[in-house]
Amino acid sequence: MRQVADQLPVSADDVAGAVSRLSGVANRTPIVTSRELNQRLGADVFLKAEQFQRGGAFKFRGAYNAVSSLSEAELARGVVAASSGNHAQALAIAAAVAGAEATIFMPRDAPASKRAATEGYGARVIEFDRYSDDREAIVQELVERDGLTPVHPYEDSRVMAGAGTSTLELLEDAAPLDLVVVPAGGGGQLSGGAVAASGVAERPRVVGVEPAAMGQWKASLAAGHPVRVEVGATIADGQQLRSPGKLTFAVVKALGVDVVGVADEDIVRAMRYLFERQKLVTEPSGASAVAAVLSGLIDVKGLRVGVIMSGGNIAVDRFASLMS
Amino acid sequence: MRQVADQLPVSADDVAGAVSRLSGVANRTPIVTSRELNQRLGADVFLKAEQFQRGGAFKFRGAYNAVSSLSEAELARGVVAASSGNHAQALAIAAAVAGAEATIFMPRDAPASKRAATEGYGARVIEFDRYSDDREAIVQELVERDGLTPVHPYEDSRVMAGAGTSTLELLEDAAPLDLVVVPAGGGGQLSGGAVAASGVAERPRVVGVEPAAMGQWKASLAAGHPVRVEVGATIADGQQLRSPGKLTFAVVKALGVDVVGVADEDIVRAMRYLFERQKLVTEPSGASAVAAVLSGLIDVKGLRVGVIMSGGNIAVDRFASLMS
Repeated sequence: MRQVADQLPVSADDVAGAVSRLSGVANRTPIVTSRELNQRLGADVFLKAEQFQRGGAFKFRGAYNAVSSLSEAELARGVVAASSGNHAQALAIAAAVAGAEATIFMPRDAPASKRAATEGYGARVIEFDRYSDDREAIVQELVERDGLTPVHPYEDSRVMAGAGTSTLELLEDAAPLDLVVVPAGGGGQLSGGAVAASGVAERPRVVGVEPAAMGQWKASLAAGHPVRVEVGATIADGQQLRSPGKLTFAVVKALGVDVVGVADEDIVRAMRYLFERQKLVTEPSGASAVAAVLSGLIDVKGLRVGVIMSGGNIAVDRFASLMS
Repeated sequence: MRQVADQLPVSADDVAGAVSRLSGVANRTPIVTSRELNQRLGADVFLKAEQFQRGGAFKFRGAYNAVSSLSEAELARGVVAASSGNHAQALAIAAAVAGAEATIFMPRDAPASKRAATEGYGARVIEFDRYSDDREAIVQELVERDGLTPVHPYEDSRVMAGAGTSTLELLEDAAPLDLVVVPAGGGGQLSGGAVAASGVAERPRVVGVEPAAMGQWKASLAAGHPVRVEVGATIADGQQLRSPGKLTFAVVKALGVDVVGVADEDIVRAMRYLFERQKLVTEPSGASAVAAVLSGLIDVKGLRVGVIMSGGNIAVDRFASLMS
């Protein structure tokens, strides 16, 4: 395993280095425990509360780890990404902290609140058409023309290492764990977390959770390489990606990580549970790993299990409509 | 001031003693800070998150401080209270922890979920009719007939001292504060908190917040003694009391505490803000002090201010309906 890990784009040392880099800048988010939850599941459950991260999701970890590794000259030219989601706000904050300008391409139909929040953190927002424009191409154009550094939401070893710090902190603060459950979208947090878990003595099992209606990880793991699935209807918009990343997939495959698919109705139930019993706000993707555990999809009986709540960016009105 | 405090039913030493008694049993709840909130208000704001207390509200503090001071014989006979709200669950948990039986009188029309939660903690629930039964009398009957110890939600010096620990912890963890803002219903948390504040070197100002539609504190402070007001329509059910307590009022008056009245619409706005920006669930009463600060009713500019979020017990459906 150690030999496998040595050939991967991210090492356990990279994740540990990211923890140091994030110290005092990112929040070391709290771990929530509950007697009631432990009794219900017959397990010791540790919920890592990334909704309390800067920007309301784990994404700041990867974005800042990437931005803080840039040279003065690179920072002066700025960073760029295309994102309608939590990565947009995360990169905007990370760039502001590092004193760089962030340019964020956002789809024309992105919620006005997300655009306002991203601009509120000081980023320059440029609209694109998600149906006719190629987002990779428009990012690449600014990279080549103006020398901006692209910070991809997950296909970037610095972002993967940064995203893995949520798992590493959990492993440190709730040691020893038997199992860590991590939401899976593009795979930044899952791959970084799996690398982190491979570097601690107890070697906990890592399981990813994706929306069953998408299944990009299940299909790709079955095929042995990243495949592109049809877009399925799911409320978990943060994980609604047609394919895993190439880099993230390579890590997840090499480290033998399983990924399970959770149903939207179980996500809704988990969001309601977290609201009513734990007084915590989660967005659908943020509650997906909790949903897999609460629903019994992942059997945790008798285990010490860490579960990542990856974000809480949801408007009250959308929350209310999902719960109705 | 020190002389005044010496004649009150609760001393700063009582509150400090309660902190020790609660240690390891109650949660020392986190203090939430936010760069965005500080910028918005031009202040350093420290939100004390009592929704993460056992039972979902500050009430466990007072209930456990009272129950843990009982003798073996008193514990064997059990405790009793009448409550439809957070005190019911708090006393049920406190009694379970102390190994005593709790008998809780709940109104027949209390929400089924609250009754189920109270019974879930092991309490015996007896229904009463809130329109025809005198709740003090039915409690007194069990006290006299079966020797149960009554634990009033606020008119009890042990409960007041316990409830004051939320403020004392805030004063310790965010020192030095200029101002502490505390929700006011019956006055347990406000009176205990005011006593705690009178015992620290910096002597912060303490302001209570009640629903403007009730105004029991404003009317009583104007009259110089507790008066009984009409029941006004407010969403802040935890503070919907026609009169302050006699003991709590005596403390609040003696220590020169101001109480302001907040509008329901400002409470709704604060609940929405805490959900969307801080990822925190609050019930209406729990958000009332935050509402008074966010709305500008209490001017905090330039100050270091502690604000208590007193509870988060609200069903998703009620939350959604209040936000619509």
